[in-house]
Amino acid sequence: MIGVGIVGYGYWGPNLARAVSESGVARVEMIADMSPDALARAAQRHPAAKLTTDIAELIRAPGVDAVMIATPVHTHFPIARDALRASKHVLVEKPMTDDVAQAIQLVEEAAKRRKVLMVDHTFVYTPAVRAISEMIGAGELGEVYYYDSTRVNLGLFQRDVNVIWDLAVHDFAIVDHLLDQRPVMISASAARFLTGSPENMAQLTVHYDGGAMAHLNVNWLAPVKIRQTLIGGSRKMVVYDDMQTSEKVKVYDRGAMCSADPYEKLVSYRLGDMHAPALRAKEALLTEVEEFVRCIETGATPLTDGLSGLRIVEMLAAASRSVELRGHPVDLTSLKVAS
Amino acid sequence: MIGVGIVGYGYWGPNLARAVSESGVARVEMIADMSPDALARAAQRHPAAKLTTDIAELIRAPGVDAVMIATPVHTHFPIARDALRASKHVLVEKPMTDDVAQAIQLVEEAAKRRKVLMVDHTFVYTPAVRAISEMIGAGELGEVYYYDSTRVNLGLFQRDVNVIWDLAVHDFAIVDHLLDQRPVMISASAARFLTGSPENMAQLTVHYDGGAMAHLNVNWLAPVKIRQTLIGGSRKMVVYDDMQTSEKVKVYDRGAMCSADPYEKLVSYRLGDMHAPALRAKEALLTEVEEFVRCIETGATPLTDGLSGLRIVEMLAAASRSVELRGHPVDLTSLKVAS
Amino acid sequence: MIGVGIVGYGYWGPNLARAVSESGVARVEMIADMSPDALARAAQRHPAAKLTTDIAELIRAPGVDAVMIATPVHTHFPIARDALRASKHVLVEKPMTDDVAQAIQLVEEAAKRRKVLMVDHTFVYTPAVRAISEMIGAGELGEVYYYDSTRVNLGLFQRDVNVIWDLAVHDFAIVDHLLDQRPVMISASAARFLTGSPENMAQLTVHYDGGAMAHLNVNWLAPVKIRQTLIGGSRKMVVYDDMQTSEKVKVYDRGAMCSADPYEKLVSYRLGDMHAPALRAKEALLTEVEEFVRCIETGATPLTDGLSGLRIVEMLAAASRSVELRGHPVDLTSLKVAS
Amino acid sequence: MIGVGIVGYGYWGPNLARAVSESGVARVEMIADMSPDALARAAQRHPAAKLTTDIAELIRAPGVDAVMIATPVHTHFPIARDALRASKHVLVEKPMTDDVAQAIQLVEEAAKRRKVLMVDHTFVYTPAVRAISEMIGAGELGEVYYYDSTRVNLGLFQRDVNVIWDLAVHDFAIVDHLLDQRPVMISASAARFLTGSPENMAQLTVHYDGGAMAHLNVNWLAPVKIRQTLIGGSRKMVVYDDMQTSEKVKVYDRGAMCSADPYEKLVSYRLGDMHAPALRAKEALLTEVEEFVRCIETGATPLTDGLSGLRIVEMLAAASRSVELRGHPVDLTSLKVAS
Repeated sequence: MIGVGIVGYGYWGPNLARAVSESGVARVEMIADMSPDALARAAQRHPAAKLTTDIAELIRAPGVDAVMIATPVHTHFPIARDALRASKHVLVEKPMTDDVAQAIQLVEEAAKRRKVLMVDHTFVYTPAVRAISEMIGAGELGEVYYYDSTRVNLGLFQRDVNVIWDLAVHDFAIVDHLLDQRPVMISASAARFLTGSPENMAQLTVHYDGGAMAHLNVNWLAPVKIRQTLIGGSRKMVVYDDMQTSEKVKVYDRGAMCSADPYEKLVSYRLGDMHAPALRAKEALLTEVEEFVRCIETGATPLTDGLSGLRIVEMLAAASRSVELRGHPVDLTSLKVAS
Repeated sequence: MIGVGIVGYGYWGPNLARAVSESGVARVEMIADMSPDALARAAQRHPAAKLTTDIAELIRAPGVDAVMIATPVHTHFPIARDALRASKHVLVEKPMTDDVAQAIQLVEEAAKRRKVLMVDHTFVYTPAVRAISEMIGAGELGEVYYYDSTRVNLGLFQRDVNVIWDLAVHDFAIVDHLLDQRPVMISASAARFLTGSPENMAQLTVHYDGGAMAHLNVNWLAPVKIRQTLIGGSRKMVVYDDMQTSEKVKVYDRGAMCSADPYEKLVSYRLGDMHAPALRAKEALLTEVEEFVRCIETGATPLTDGLSGLRIVEMLAAASRSVELRGHPVDLTSLKVAS
Repeated sequence: MIGVGIVGYGYWGPNLARAVSESGVARVEMIADMSPDALARAAQRHPAAKLTTDIAELIRAPGVDAVMIATPVHTHFPIARDALRASKHVLVEKPMTDDVAQAIQLVEEAAKRRKVLMVDHTFVYTPAVRAISEMIGAGELGEVYYYDSTRVNLGLFQRDVNVIWDLAVHDFAIVDHLLDQRPVMISASAARFLTGSPENMAQLTVHYDGGAMAHLNVNWLAPVKIRQTLIGGSRKMVVYDDMQTSEKVKVYDRGAMCSADPYEKLVSYRLGDMHAPALRAKEALLTEVEEFVRCIETGATPLTDGLSGLRIVEMLAAASRSVELRGHPVDLTSLKVAS
Repeated sequence: MIGVGIVGYGYWGPNLARAVSESGVARVEMIADMSPDALARAAQRHPAAKLTTDIAELIRAPGVDAVMIATPVHTHFPIARDALRASKHVLVEKPMTDDVAQAIQLVEEAAKRRKVLMVDHTFVYTPAVRAISEMIGAGELGEVYYYDSTRVNLGLFQRDVNVIWDLAVHDFAIVDHLLDQRPVMISASAARFLTGSPENMAQLTVHYDGGAMAHLNVNWLAPVKIRQTLIGGSRKMVVYDDMQTSEKVKVYDRGAMCSADPYEKLVSYRLGDMHAPALRAKEALLTEVEEFVRCIETGATPLTDGLSGLRIVEMLAAASRSVELRGHPVDLTSLKVAS
C-alpha cells in the first residue's frame, strides 16, 4: 500500500489525509506541519501517522512513497522540487506554482525522474465535471461554442493571491480538461474595492484556436453564492449549477441554426427536452486519490498532470498581465505549453 | 389631451399605442406603417386613430403633437429629425440611433426647437429599477462598487444589430441612470457562432471615473433565460432578478471591510438580514408615457432624455470598436458627452 | 362556422370570447351581460358581435349554435338547462353546478337532446396536463400511487364559494382525467380565519378503488403562490410545478422496491435520471374551444363532458359534507356517478 | 464537567458524542453498544471514553452523570427508566417512547427523582425555529392561524415505525413549541404503497383550542426532497424552507382583512415587504447539549422536556388511531397531557 506524506495540515491538508485514509489504496505515513496545534489535531485523527515539524524529514522518510503538498502557494515549488529529487511522487495543491518558470522546472524534474506529478484540480474529479466531460467526448453537445462561468460569493479574501488565482483557476482547469482546443488570447479586467487587499472582482475572456470562447466572472464581494456555468454547443447546451443539491447538470436539446436560404428567416430555433443525468455519488477527492495511486502503480498519466498544471499557471500569469494592462488582450500563442 | 402619432406598428408599436390609450393623458391620433396588414390590426385595436402609410403625412398632421418612433434602428434618425423640425415632441425606440453623429444632431435639434426628445429605455421605468434607484439615491447601498449583469437567453437573433446593440443597451441605460459616475474605459469581447449572423455573445467591462466597474454578459445562444444583476455597495448589496415573479429585488446587509490593524485578520465580513421591498405594480411603459406627457406639458427633462440616449450610443459605438480590436480597451474620456 | 353566444362578460367571459375569435373554427355571434359597461367593452373588442342584456334572447337567437356560460355558479343550472332545451350545445364554467341533482338533470337533458355538454375544466387542456396524461396512458409511470397537490396563494377570497369549490375543483378535474380509478372515500378538513368569509384553507384526502390516494392542500391565505403537484408511480414519479416558466413537468426515474428476501434490506431505492419534456406552446383555452367545436361537429364526447362535470360536483358536495363533519370520512361508493 | 454516557453508537449516537465533545461543558465518559464494530469506531473518535457492551454497566458507572439514549424506539423506555432510577439525568431520542403509558411513567419517574428528562427534538433547537419562535413570542405574526408543513423525500423506509412516527414527529414537536394552544382533534389518513412495509405517505390535520390548524404532509416516496412550512398569522406570514442554504426563514408582511362594511369588497389584501433575518450559525445539536447541561446544573426545565415529549407521543398515538379509522377524527381533549 502506497505510503503518503502530507505537508501542511491547515485548511486543506486534513481533507487530503481523510481521503487517503478512506481510499483503502494508500495510508497516511507521515504528516508535517510547523504548528504544534495542527500536529495535535493530526494525531487525534490519524493516530498511526508519524508527525514532524521538519519537511525535509518527511521527504526523506523511507515509508513515504508520495508527497501531498497543501501549503501556501509560494512554497509549492521548493517542496515539490525536493520531493521529486528524492524520487517521491507528488500531488500539489492548485495552482501548481505562482511562477511559470518554476512550473516548467517541476514538469522537467518529474519527467527526468519518471515520477508522477499531479495537481489537485479537484473540480475535474467531481461527478458533475466527469459527466460533462463524457458527454462532450461522446459528441453529444456537438461543437463546443463557449464555456461561461459565474463563480461569485462573499469572501474569503486571500492575503497573498487575488480572486483570479483563487477562483478563476478552477475554471481554467475545467476548461483545460473539457475542451480539445488551445487558448490563443486572454483578456482580463479586475478591480479592488477594499484598499490594501488584492483584486476581488474580475472578468476574463479567453479565445481558443478552434473558435470557442471562455468567459469567467469571479468575485469575492458578491451578496450571494453563485456557481453557475453555461456550456453552449452546436447540438446541445448544458447548465451546470454546483449550488443545486440535486440535478447539478442539466442538458438542453436546444439551439439555433442559420438558414442558408436568403428568403428564409435568418435563424431558426430548436426547443427540445431537458435531461438531468443521475450523477455518481462518489466524492471528488476520493476519485482523485485513486487516480493518483493508479498512476503511481501503472505509470499512467493523470488527468491533471504537471503539464496541465503548467498550462494553467501560464494562463493565470497571462491573465495577470492583462489586468496590469487594464484589459489589453495578451497573446497566448507564444507560450511554451499552453498554445 | 396630447395627440400622439405612432410610426411603426410591428412588434413594439402596438405596445406603445396601447400604453398611450390606457394612460388617459394622451390619445392615439394617427398610426403609420408601410404594411396594410399592420394597419388593419391597428384599425381593429384603435378604431378612432387615423391611419396612413406615409410617415411625412403623420409628421405634419396638426393633431399630432408628439411622435413615437418604433421602426428599425437605421430609420430612427431621419424620422426623428423630421419630426423635431416639424416642432413635434419625439419618443424614439432604443437605441436612439446607430451612429454618434446622428445622435448629437438629434439632441441639438431638440434643444434648438425646445422640444422633448426622449428615448424609450423602458427598463429605467420598471418598478424594480425605480426602487433600486431610490435606494442608491438615499445612500442605502453606500458607495456603489460594481454593477454585474447576466442577460442571456435563446434568441431572438437580430438581422441588423448584434447582441451588444440588442441586449447590452438595456444595461447601459440602467447604469447610466443608477450611477452618478462617468465611464472612462470600455473593453468588449464578442463571438459569432453561426456563420452569417451578427455576434451573438459578448462580455463588456466598463470602468467609471469614481472607481466603479460595470460588467455585462450578454448572449443570444444560451439554453435558459437569465436576467440577473448584482449590485455591490460598501454598505449593502442588491440582487435584481427579473425572472422572478415576486421579490425581483433583494437587498442584502452584507459586505466586507479591510482591517487597518496589521495584526488583525485582513478582511472582516458582515452577514446581516435580507430585505425584499414590495414593488409598485405599475407597468413600466405606462409610467414612461406619463413621464413623456408630463415633460411635454411642464418643460421638465425626462429621465431618459436625448443626452442620456446619446451617451448610450457613444458607449455602444465604443464597445463595437473594442470588439473589432478583439478586446483592446477603448478610452471614453475623449467622448463628447459620455465622459 | 359555429356561432357562439357568450353569457357573462365579466372576469372569464372575455377570455372565452377571445379564444373563440382566435380559434378560426367558431365566431362570436352574440354576447349577453347585465352590465352596460361590460357590453361596451365587449363592443370594442368584438365589433361584429350582437349584444344583449337578455339571456333568453341570446339563447333563442338562430345564429347561436352553442352557448358558453361564464356567470356566477348558482346561475349555471337555469341558463344551461334553457340552452339545452333550445337545442343549443353548452360549455359551462366550472363547477358545472353547485348541486348534484341539478348536475344530473343537465347531463340527462344533454343526452336526451343529443347536444354537447362540456365543462370548462381548463387545466385538463394545458400542455402540462396533456403531457402527464399521455405518460400515464403509455404506462411510463407504472401504477399510479398518489396525486399530491399544493395549490395556495394570497386571495382572491370568493364571496359565495369556499376554497374547496374554488381551488380544489381544479385538482378534482385533473385527477378525474388522469386516473382510471374511482373515488371511494373522501375526508376534508377546513378552517376559516376571517370571520364572515367562507372557509379559506382546506386539506382533502381521497381514497380510490385501485388503491391510489389523492391529497389536496388548498389555501387562499398563503404568503406565496405555490402550484406544485407530485405524482408517484411504481416506475417513475412526476413533479408538476405550474409556477415555473419552463420545465413545468419533470419526470424522475426514481422509486423504491420492497425486497421479498427477509435477509435483505427492507426496501431498495432507484435513483435515475430526470427528464423534462418540451411542452407544446398552445394555450389551453384554445385547445378547449377546438375540442368543443370538434365534438359539436363529429358527435364525439369531450374530455371534460357533463358526466365528468357531475362526478366533480359529487366530490365537491361530499367534501363539503366531510368538512361539516369536521373531517369525518364520507363514503363515495353510493354516489350515482362518481363511484 | 458533566460526565455523559451514550447508549447506542449507530446512526445518531456518533452525532451526540461529537456534540458533547465539542460543547466544552460536558465530556463523553462512556459509550455502550452491542456491536464490536460500533465500539471500534467509537474508540477511534473518542479515545478517552470507556466502552462497554453492557448498558447496565454504563448506567451504574459513577462517572456517568447523564445518559443519552440513541437506540431503537421500543428500547427507549426500559433504558430511560433504569437510568432515572439510578438517579441519572436522561436525554432520549425522539419519539420518547412508542406508548403513552410508558411516556407517563418516565415523566413521573423524573419528577420523583428530580432529574432532568429531555427529549431530543433537535428541530426545536435549530436557528430557524429559534428565530420563528422569537418572532411569534414577540407578537410579530399576530394571531397564528395555521402551520402547514410538507416534509417529503425518497426514503429511508423504516422497518419498525411508519412515516408518521418518523417524520410527522418533527412537526408535532415544532408546533408544540411554537403555539401556545392545545390540540383538540386530529385527523390522519395514510397509505402504504409497498406491500409489507409500513405506511409511507400520510396527511394529518390538527385543530387547536385557540382556532389554529396544523396540516402535515409526510411522504417517504416522493421524487424530490421538500422541507417547506408555511405559517400564517393575522399580521405576518412565514415561509420556512429548510432546503435553502441561505434565507431559510422569510417573513412576509402580507395578509387579508375582512371588511365590516357590507358595501365594501369582502376582503382586502396587504402586500408588503419580505424580510429574511440572518440566522445564527450555531449547530442545533450543540445548542441542545448546552441546554441539557444548563438544566442539569440549574434545575431549569428544558424547552423539550418530558412533558412535551409525552404530549407528542399522545398525538402520535392519536394519529395512529385516526389512520386505523381511515381518517375519522380523534378527540384529543380527553388526553391526560396534550389537552
